[in-house]
Amino acid sequence: MIQKAVVLSTGDEITTGKVVDTNANYLSDKLAEIGIDLVAVITVGDVPDRLEWAWRTAIGLGDVVISTGGIGPTADDLTTETVARLAGVKLWRDEASVEQMKRLFASFSRPMPENNLKQAMFPEGAEVIVNPLGTAPGFRMPLTLDGHTSNLIVMPGVPREMKPMMENSVIPWINANRGTDKVYAVRTFQTFGMSESALDEAVIGLIKPEEAKVSFRASFPQISIRIRVEGQPGEVERRADELAKRVLGKISEFVYAEGETTMEDVVGELFVEKNLTLAVAESCTGGLIGHRITNVPGCSRYFLGDLVTYSNDAKGGVLGVSAKTLETHGAVSEECVAEMAAGARKRTGASVAVATSGIAGPDGGTPDKPVGTVCIALSSNDQSVTRRYQFRGTRDWVKLITSQVALDWLRRYAIGLPIGDSALFRR
Amino acid sequence: MIQKAVVLSTGDEITTGKVVDTNANYLSDKLAEIGIDLVAVITVGDVPDRLEWAWRTAIGLGDVVISTGGIGPTADDLTTETVARLAGVKLWRDEASVEQMKRLFASFSRPMPENNLKQAMFPEGAEVIVNPLGTAPGFRMPLTLDGHTSNLIVMPGVPREMKPMMENSVIPWINANRGTDKVYAVRTFQTFGMSESALDEAVIGLIKPEEAKVSFRASFPQISIRIRVEGQPGEVERRADELAKRVLGKISEFVYAEGETTMEDVVGELFVEKNLTLAVAESCTGGLIGHRITNVPGCSRYFLGDLVTYSNDAKGGVLGVSAKTLETHGAVSEECVAEMAAGARKRTGASVAVATSGIAGPDGGTPDKPVGTVCIALSSNDQSVTRRYQFRGTRDWVKLITSQVALDWLRRYAIGLPIGDSALFRR
Repeated sequence: MIQKAVVLSTGDEITTGKVVDTNANYLSDKLAEIGIDLVAVITVGDVPDRLEWAWRTAIGLGDVVISTGGIGPTADDLTTETVARLAGVKLWRDEASVEQMKRLFASFSRPMPENNLKQAMFPEGAEVIVNPLGTAPGFRMPLTLDGHTSNLIVMPGVPREMKPMMENSVIPWINANRGTDKVYAVRTFQTFGMSESALDEAVIGLIKPEEAKVSFRASFPQISIRIRVEGQPGEVERRADELAKRVLGKISEFVYAEGETTMEDVVGELFVEKNLTLAVAESCTGGLIGHRITNVPGCSRYFLGDLVTYSNDAKGGVLGVSAKTLETHGAVSEECVAEMAAGARKRTGASVAVATSGIAGPDGGTPDKPVGTVCIALSSNDQSVTRRYQFRGTRDWVKLITSQVALDWLRRYAIGLPIGDSALFRR
Repeated sequence: MIQKAVVLSTGDEITTGKVVDTNANYLSDKLAEIGIDLVAVITVGDVPDRLEWAWRTAIGLGDVVISTGGIGPTADDLTTETVARLAGVKLWRDEASVEQMKRLFASFSRPMPENNLKQAMFPEGAEVIVNPLGTAPGFRMPLTLDGHTSNLIVMPGVPREMKPMMENSVIPWINANRGTDKVYAVRTFQTFGMSESALDEAVIGLIKPEEAKVSFRASFPQISIRIRVEGQPGEVERRADELAKRVLGKISEFVYAEGETTMEDVVGELFVEKNLTLAVAESCTGGLIGHRITNVPGCSRYFLGDLVTYSNDAKGGVLGVSAKTLETHGAVSEECVAEMAAGARKRTGASVAVATSGIAGPDGGTPDKPVGTVCIALSSNDQSVTRRYQFRGTRDWVKLITSQVALDWLRRYAIGLPIGDSALFRR
């Protein structure tokens, strides 16, 4: 039975604060997704007796111990030796791993240093977990200490190598060996525009606790909903789909994607699909919207440009905002952003433009327009929408939430939903 | 003697992967800075027997145990009870903490919920650590288990409340109680333009191991150097200054700040000081430079605007890049970025402008201009500099390194250093 897990993170770079241990977070999330109870995360540096203590402790607590780090080619990489010592077994060399390493080095046109051979050594009884992206394969082996048997899973610390190993090898292995015929199906949705408590309220009545476990994860500015169904193979996927449909039926407007997709990804897909082109005019967000849009590969198919006009002169000179508007209503006004969006379309020929202007803080607020006041506009050949928002938070937060609302407006425009009318706005 | 520490992170939100535990990283870094050996980080969820196990284990391993989380007002906040149970003592209510909470709620014009009173309860023998920013004070108490005495330090999990408590109360307390008359002085420098190994090589000959501990922390795109001097009060600061001077004498060009300052902060300070104004023209970076510049409060004093011209039409129409340049040399060329920078100055009236154009990838590379090819230009009334770089890495990485080089050019321009001539470039 595999029910309880321990995650082991090793490396001096973690215990001296040089790197943030994002692996532990990733593994915690993946284990929660498949319903494995994470008893503890233990982190120690590259010190032999501490490693041995950590492994002993982890084996005592978990049915499975998932370790990252300490299997590189250098002298301070001690994980494999530590496990072999605890198991009382010798190391053997896996020739298939040696060949795979040689191929990897050949593909870089570099000779393989002798010390990399260390990475092809495994404790007797271990099964190799292939690492398609790096020189350090992982391994898996059972180990009994003080009468308790635990399944050890050893992976490299480099996230881009570890994650595919976890997803392609480790999770399927855990699911196949957990000693229950129950399986899990998970559906994850990304939402924006409703608070966590509003989402909770909306979803709580739809899914009974015995039907699925529903959890929320707020990774600002998006909140994801995860529906985890436990059941028998052959029926669990159907039930997950049915529950997902039920949830979507109630909050579809606020769900912008299934899975790990970002808002800018979704906007990109929609703009390609609908053959739209995009321009942006930013003031308070300072380039963040353009930055997010251009994080999406291939965005040159729809994104033409982003005119960040921070000064009033630039708003006039670059975007053609009238002096009268700036004088009468100020730069942070629905009138100004409307002219900014129209100006951005005119200057670039884009079919759609969004514009932002606001007071990100910490200074610059007035009684009429306190810090967090933000105006957003969208302009297209068939619509011209403006809204004024009052956000709260730090400068970074105001920039980020503004960029998210602007991107959500573009998504809503592309699929024909009403703009500027989200739950956030109604609150 | 306080030599060894254990960090305890508690909370279901960590063990289920809902939040990344940045507190552990922060505490690891701070402990390394003052020369305390971090034996382990232990993380458990809000489960009574796991909390008790974690505390027992931590007390057995550390002279000091630093805990974050689990002191909120709700039923799953169990840290205080767990500590009291282990110590075999009762809880008492600190009226000063109650008063402080009441003041805090009054400042929000909200009544204090009854359950917040829980946060004013402390184990007998505990000394309160005031939390000026939140409702959860921390506490500190010695505890002996199985003959080993450890100093327990309990703080809230909210980083913005925990960090000032660590810096203002906990670190001074550790330093005063570590049982040695040695003290530490630390100097940290932010560098850009030299690789970690080049920095190591440059610094290694300057400082002998017995003079100071030198460490590097690569938090891309910057690398910080930390010099930690151990010695007697009254002389240690002088020695740290002297070593810092020695290092600066060799690599001053690549040191852009002392402490935790960012490159955009430094650019901002210099532009204010020198009374310069700034415009940006971006292509491949897509708005990231503008975003970074506008992360600095008060940037409207020098930042006028950022013209992100992603399409060739926008480069021509908005910035005035000539059709001939685009045809003959292409958008990714030194000729094009020179015209972009000049155009940005012209359109905004700024005294200085930088421009970027490149192939961020993953697609769009050609044999002549592979992915990672980036051209950067700076234009001012007295200089016009262009360079072509070949970066490697993912799309995000190419955008980030390009933004950093462009900001470094602005820094170099403002202080009169040669531009486009860094060690990075020479490698």
